[in-house]
Amino acid sequence: MNNAKALPSYLLQRYQGWKATGYAENQTWYRRLAAEGQRPRAMVISCCDSRVHVTSIFGADQGEFFIHRNIANLVPPYEPDGKQHGTSAAVEYAVNALKVAHLIVLGHSSCGGVAGCIQMCQGKAPELEGQDSFVGRWMDLLRPKYEKVENVEDPAEQQLQLERQAVMTSLENLMTFPWIKEKVEDGTLSLHGLWTDIGEGSLEYYDAKSGEFEPV
Amino acid sequence: MNNAKALPSYLLQRYQGWKATGYAENQTWYRRLAAEGQRPRAMVISCCDSRVHVTSIFGADQGEFFIHRNIANLVPPYEPDGKQHGTSAAVEYAVNALKVAHLIVLGHSSCGGVAGCIQMCQGKAPELEGQDSFVGRWMDLLRPKYEKVENVEDPAEQQLQLERQAVMTSLENLMTFPWIKEKVEDGTLSLHGLWTDIGEGSLEYYDAKSGEFEPV
Amino acid sequence: MNNAKALPSYLLQRYQGWKATGYAENQTWYRRLAAEGQRPRAMVISCCDSRVHVTSIFGADQGEFFIHRNIANLVPPYEPDGKQHGTSAAVEYAVNALKVAHLIVLGHSSCGGVAGCIQMCQGKAPELEGQDSFVGRWMDLLRPKYEKVENVEDPAEQQLQLERQAVMTSLENLMTFPWIKEKVEDGTLSLHGLWTDIGEGSLEYYDAKSGEFEPV
Amino acid sequence: MNNAKALPSYLLQRYQGWKATGYAENQTWYRRLAAEGQRPRAMVISCCDSRVHVTSIFGADQGEFFIHRNIANLVPPYEPDGKQHGTSAAVEYAVNALKVAHLIVLGHSSCGGVAGCIQMCQGKAPELEGQDSFVGRWMDLLRPKYEKVENVEDPAEQQLQLERQAVMTSLENLMTFPWIKEKVEDGTLSLHGLWTDIGEGSLEYYDAKSGEFEPV
Repeated sequence: MNNAKALPSYLLQRYQGWKATGYAENQTWYRRLAAEGQRPRAMVISCCDSRVHVTSIFGADQGEFFIHRNIANLVPPYEPDGKQHGTSAAVEYAVNALKVAHLIVLGHSSCGGVAGCIQMCQGKAPELEGQDSFVGRWMDLLRPKYEKVENVEDPAEQQLQLERQAVMTSLENLMTFPWIKEKVEDGTLSLHGLWTDIGEGSLEYYDAKSGEFEPV
Repeated sequence: MNNAKALPSYLLQRYQGWKATGYAENQTWYRRLAAEGQRPRAMVISCCDSRVHVTSIFGADQGEFFIHRNIANLVPPYEPDGKQHGTSAAVEYAVNALKVAHLIVLGHSSCGGVAGCIQMCQGKAPELEGQDSFVGRWMDLLRPKYEKVENVEDPAEQQLQLERQAVMTSLENLMTFPWIKEKVEDGTLSLHGLWTDIGEGSLEYYDAKSGEFEPV
Repeated sequence: MNNAKALPSYLLQRYQGWKATGYAENQTWYRRLAAEGQRPRAMVISCCDSRVHVTSIFGADQGEFFIHRNIANLVPPYEPDGKQHGTSAAVEYAVNALKVAHLIVLGHSSCGGVAGCIQMCQGKAPELEGQDSFVGRWMDLLRPKYEKVENVEDPAEQQLQLERQAVMTSLENLMTFPWIKEKVEDGTLSLHGLWTDIGEGSLEYYDAKSGEFEPV
Repeated sequence: MNNAKALPSYLLQRYQGWKATGYAENQTWYRRLAAEGQRPRAMVISCCDSRVHVTSIFGADQGEFFIHRNIANLVPPYEPDGKQHGTSAAVEYAVNALKVAHLIVLGHSSCGGVAGCIQMCQGKAPELEGQDSFVGRWMDLLRPKYEKVENVEDPAEQQLQLERQAVMTSLENLMTFPWIKEKVEDGTLSLHGLWTDIGEGSLEYYDAKSGEFEPV
């Protein structure tokens, strides 16, 4: 591998600033985390989107959340076929090795992955249809839910509803993992579905009783 | 899905604190991000480990980094087989849709995934060998590199070297994606390999010239 | 004193969140508490254990409970020898200056102090035996009660019984303070013994009639 | 012990409310805390005063802070004489058994213990002078600092300055414990001094460089 480059200088400068301040002030905590290992309370499954910082929203510090981020915060169903499943590996490590108490799926507004899924389902994104489109194949996970929103006329409302379906899909798929189902049923693990509006800073949660998303 | 629960109250309280401060103070920026979409300058591929906050280390604000986090910050090789590849989907979206200028792979000390890989390679982790171990199958991506470190006698040094191999493996695999190779070669995308020590707050980068990791 | 450091930033951020929400919403109450002084209805003597929040369990707001927390919620006997007795000072201030109506001793499951006491009594904790072990000397307060549980074979049951003995010891020792005994006898002060199970969230109280702990 | 009474009904009712809500929503977390033990990040030494809720100010949940509360948040000097020292026992358990990363001393406005100390020092509180005044003897810990504030004419300012001296005294005394000094010097433990104004909700920290308390 001879193509890697040194860090851009603006990042180098920011790193040195953090080292002299954020790190220096919390050195004892970093050393303890290093010596004793992590023991996070929750796993958060969030989108890669640069506008969603789960650590900001919840004032979380180093050591609190085990965080997996992928396109559209999707969890595939349980499929132990011996192949690579990065999301399932992250969930397995959190639940079985770290024994987190909470699995939180966090969706968000203006999700590019969800928008691409709608385009695909409406036949407007041939570039996502091929075997060589990883984004397209990944969004196939959400595709069956499009029928629940296809009659919504307002595009913004349709997008929002499919974003919420993405959160619900992940919650449903999490329950197909036998060791998650068991822990949820015996009360040692709880699942949470959230959706945040980037522009408004609002937060909604999936209410299992009403089957709707409600403001927190 | 009837098992989801409301947000634990401590997170609710912290969210409301953020809404009244962090969000309120930056509302104009959040609204602009929502209205105009994201335009991150870099993608970071980091570990799910709760002790690694790339946004802290680099003082990054909302909108700056497109972040994928998985176990051991691994990127699989290009494999357009029509199946789900979450990491490849995230990379594709960052490079082809968002046109980021930098792909940064960030490894770290005390990585649980790397430790598991070593256990597997030494025949000490039968629980990771089965088809139903997502962590084990995911760490197969790094397994071929074990031979480079198997003669290292000090276990701490061995772990550290394999953590660096994980970063190098991801850099190598990124170059198997044809649209990444092309952009790297025409100078519109650069790759960066980093490794951070959690306890010391230090940062090293992969130096393509020496083939070694060097302090920044 | 030149070793003190500034507040870790995650606490700073959370404080600012509280200031903008919890404080702002209750400013009139905080100001009145500051202007008029506290007038708590009860004193609670609880353990330092991070898992026991008496304010959560009883939905208590600022101003309601005068709270002393020490290892294993122990009250020493009345010993007016002119030396420092922090617990006795707290009790004196609550009863004589603030004239609380209730003294509540709250024990809990998995108490580390009680576990240490059992280890000492079984000769398994030499590190707690020296003059320089403040934890060991503090747990001497409970040591005479070990004989009541030494024949209990199940270690979990033994621990639980000694935790309850700790609550009863404190109640007994409180009655050795002459100004407490007097107030209890003339009906202006009442004592209460409680024990909570952290994992189950259950609560039991000491029933003076049966001499047993009963579910509330 | 035949004087203990059942819980007052208003507390019983609130407990049952918490059990059905706060506990039920976080059952998985409480069970995990019970099964795995506590691992708090910080110890807080705060006053018993009913108006100071460190868990509110810092949005802390069960498991985060190991909390000792006594009159005027005072730590006595290291005195391994084989007698009971409740505060020293709590500090020993936090530092040596739990290995917390932070020791935080939190003082506050309108502190009754500090006010009593001023009264004593001005000869206006004969009732605090006797051997049988536990509050008086406890406040002897702060008494030598009165000379630093005795020329302050404004009584409110004098009280405030002595409250800050109480925080500094505790920080100084903490450093007389050999195992604290060692950890502070090798960077695995940090000390923090804070003072909060109850009515204003403000927070100040002791700045070792300036030797003054500064707003956070």
